[in-house]
Amino acid sequence: MNTSSSNPPQSDPQKTMNPLDLEEFKRQGYMMIDFLTDYYKNIENYPVLSKVEPGYLAKILPSSAPFQPESIESILEDVQQHIIPGITHWMSPNYYAYFPSSGSIAGFIGEMLSTGFNVVGFNWLSSPAATELETIVMNWLGKLLNLPKSFIFSSNIKGGGEIKKLSQIGKDNIGKLVVYCSDQTHSALQKATQIVGIHSENFRVIKTKGSNLFALSPDSLLSTILLDVDNGLIPYFLCATIGTTSTNAVDPIKLLCNVTKEYDIWVHVDAAYAGSVCICPEFRHCIDGIEELNSFSFNAHKWFLTNLACCCLWVKDHNALTTSLSTNPEFLRNKKSDSKEVIDYKDWQIPLSRKFNALKLWIVLRSYGVENLKNFLRNHVEMAKIFEGLVRKDERFEIVVPSKFSLVCFRISPFAISIANDSEGYYVGKMMNDAYLVNEMNHKLLDLINSSGKAYMSHGEVEGSFVIRCAIGATLTEEHHVTMTWKLVQQIASFLLGTPLN
Amino acid sequence: MNTSSSNPPQSDPQKTMNPLDLEEFKRQGYMMIDFLTDYYKNIENYPVLSKVEPGYLAKILPSSAPFQPESIESILEDVQQHIIPGITHWMSPNYYAYFPSSGSIAGFIGEMLSTGFNVVGFNWLSSPAATELETIVMNWLGKLLNLPKSFIFSSNIKGGGEIKKLSQIGKDNIGKLVVYCSDQTHSALQKATQIVGIHSENFRVIKTKGSNLFALSPDSLLSTILLDVDNGLIPYFLCATIGTTSTNAVDPIKLLCNVTKEYDIWVHVDAAYAGSVCICPEFRHCIDGIEELNSFSFNAHKWFLTNLACCCLWVKDHNALTTSLSTNPEFLRNKKSDSKEVIDYKDWQIPLSRKFNALKLWIVLRSYGVENLKNFLRNHVEMAKIFEGLVRKDERFEIVVPSKFSLVCFRISPFAISIANDSEGYYVGKMMNDAYLVNEMNHKLLDLINSSGKAYMSHGEVEGSFVIRCAIGATLTEEHHVTMTWKLVQQIASFLLGTPLN
Repeated sequence: MNTSSSNPPQSDPQKTMNPLDLEEFKRQGYMMIDFLTDYYKNIENYPVLSKVEPGYLAKILPSSAPFQPESIESILEDVQQHIIPGITHWMSPNYYAYFPSSGSIAGFIGEMLSTGFNVVGFNWLSSPAATELETIVMNWLGKLLNLPKSFIFSSNIKGGGEIKKLSQIGKDNIGKLVVYCSDQTHSALQKATQIVGIHSENFRVIKTKGSNLFALSPDSLLSTILLDVDNGLIPYFLCATIGTTSTNAVDPIKLLCNVTKEYDIWVHVDAAYAGSVCICPEFRHCIDGIEELNSFSFNAHKWFLTNLACCCLWVKDHNALTTSLSTNPEFLRNKKSDSKEVIDYKDWQIPLSRKFNALKLWIVLRSYGVENLKNFLRNHVEMAKIFEGLVRKDERFEIVVPSKFSLVCFRISPFAISIANDSEGYYVGKMMNDAYLVNEMNHKLLDLINSSGKAYMSHGEVEGSFVIRCAIGATLTEEHHVTMTWKLVQQIASFLLGTPLN
Repeated sequence: MNTSSSNPPQSDPQKTMNPLDLEEFKRQGYMMIDFLTDYYKNIENYPVLSKVEPGYLAKILPSSAPFQPESIESILEDVQQHIIPGITHWMSPNYYAYFPSSGSIAGFIGEMLSTGFNVVGFNWLSSPAATELETIVMNWLGKLLNLPKSFIFSSNIKGGGEIKKLSQIGKDNIGKLVVYCSDQTHSALQKATQIVGIHSENFRVIKTKGSNLFALSPDSLLSTILLDVDNGLIPYFLCATIGTTSTNAVDPIKLLCNVTKEYDIWVHVDAAYAGSVCICPEFRHCIDGIEELNSFSFNAHKWFLTNLACCCLWVKDHNALTTSLSTNPEFLRNKKSDSKEVIDYKDWQIPLSRKFNALKLWIVLRSYGVENLKNFLRNHVEMAKIFEGLVRKDERFEIVVPSKFSLVCFRISPFAISIANDSEGYYVGKMMNDAYLVNEMNHKLLDLINSSGKAYMSHGEVEGSFVIRCAIGATLTEEHHVTMTWKLVQQIASFLLGTPLN
């Protein structure tokens, strides 16, 4: 490990501690930049999915904090020797699991700046720039997404975006409130629903079908609502999704809102992953109908080059949030807040503490510019098409759901497994061709891909089928990574099926 | 502004975007370190509390994101010209408001490393080191605090700490559940209570008294509980505080737990600010009785040199958390989680995404060592004593509550105001001496301190009195800052009272 290219002096542990000595800040700051540069340079040499066993680190590290200071050199040595082997390398170009965490120079630089300023922007006064830049950047993004005016901040502070998580509260009649989603909705909704005290029997998970590409059907929604209303319950909240986790399904916002509008249901659209790509005109139709929504969110840390974490939320009527989430203790009172001419973002979120996240997103937008950002996203979509094309060309495989955005869902086909079975293939000779065994085989394929260390994918389950998910979105991924990864998949399949490579 | 000490090449906006070009990463990384070094070097030249007016930034920045990329040089130029004037400088040595946000080289370096790795440690598998280092570091901290064994992780994963916020759910009988706190408890509890659906009429705010140093009285708690039980309600949750926001009051944990234990009440202790200093033996008594608690938390970003954000939570029985917060969607299933031999921190928190925060805290503990950390904290306590001594020496002022930890609560005394009034002082000649005017005078004093730009303090209200809070805890604060700040307070008081400096 090279942590000290310019042969710096060792820290003197006996020196009186100055936690912000500027010479030392510069020395260690440069050293960390060098360390991370080396890390990125070597990232393809590490197994993407960590190979350590549970409890590995407790065996290595001391069981108590050191009494005396240790040098940054020895700390970084430990990071290299003991932490890096325990990391699953989300920044690797061969990372295709879940959805990637999107990072970039600009995102990193923005986080440094925010961390260095270390301001806590809970209200306007506590750091006006933090509040105002957030408002501006959310408007920039809102315009890129062509959001209706009702979602954009204007000078009279109505509507607008916010970098945080939605929290909805039902105070009265809580026992009658019903929440709707599909069986493809992210599990976060179920947790949120539990936390705010919605009865679990009032949480409706509406079934979707592969024949409808796993989109939530407005007809199913309507019949579910009608039944609830008949039973004296109160339809309350719908979470629709643009780009579901399993298969990137797209719920039809406009049609769903046609159903909900008669019932005064809060409609939120979770576009955590796919929201980013909707800045490209060719994908904007995915959020058609957005003017009917109450709120809309996506995570810039998933596919927008903004290092973890950065969630963007737009709310049409921010009063609905602030009415629920405002607290005005005396120690936070100030004239600007009392005047109501400023936003206090503490009233849009659960915690009081608040980092200056807008800096990150602002620097990303400026460093890359809209044109480059669109092309970056399109390039991932293009690579997904390439990967999908490769899958389709190999008849042992099937695409389970046609690829939207940059996720490819595939598996070894039941047919290929049945043939391998008939021909007494190397591995599956004794297997029988039924759904369970098809799933087992694909599970085995995924395990072997991941334990190879050369790529990391994850899985989903749709209509009982185990599906391998290849989510292309890591910043460093290039076309040759995708094609090499496909060759790896083929080789392992050949091993499993006992058939030669096509 | 000097952002480019080594005269680097300008970015070429026409070049194809490579968001992780390593040469550029290094160049911009060094540049940001230089920028922040300059920022800290000059930080005393900026007004601590920003002087901008609402809407200032929207007048300066464009209303849409740029189509073409901009250079990091021009972005940093804008940060210098337009963002820094809008920042309230939490890292300034003259920052004494609220509680400071604690930063350090180690905290910054740790954040860089975490941001660079950009791993999302929601479960063990997604980055084993993130989970395991967190467990180890929380045990280090737990031992420093001399927490009972029931709060420490052992190999059988029971109890233990977690870097996140507590969220408690009451599913049944929610309408009968009662939450207890004092009138000094942080407003966050009220918000949390609202969110989980506790009826606002079941939220008990028990009055405290100055004569009891604003501690929650076990007798008052008991009589409140008895009344609720009589009324068929269910005592559910008590939040006690070590180091309240207004005056750093310390609730008597042991005595309160004697009351609660008959009622099976979950007792949480919020030591957000003062928890850090309890690693010093002379303050450990403040958390005596901790073995009776269900959970305990403090924020390492408040007074433990760990840049925002880092909340540390210990829970005696983690099952209470995971039972409420677990979701196990198919896409996250894996053998390690199924085996139950690992911790999945996603089940200890609300969101799924999870940054590798333990790195920060680990590097802080190692870089400084326990001895230095204790001395760092003691030095702040010492400076608070010095400030308190200066206040006491000036008979125009009074200490409202004797200083504990490093917060000093003071005000101009009603007596000084009445004298100034009698002698037709410059400013207060026409004022009358009553409680309202005493508050007004102190409010004016605080406004003038803060608008001077030379220091930033905040206020509290106790028993109807407006109190000025001087919270000493910023990393860069040294004794001369504290004594100069006191001189500033005296000068402004002289101006207001029309009496000469003592």
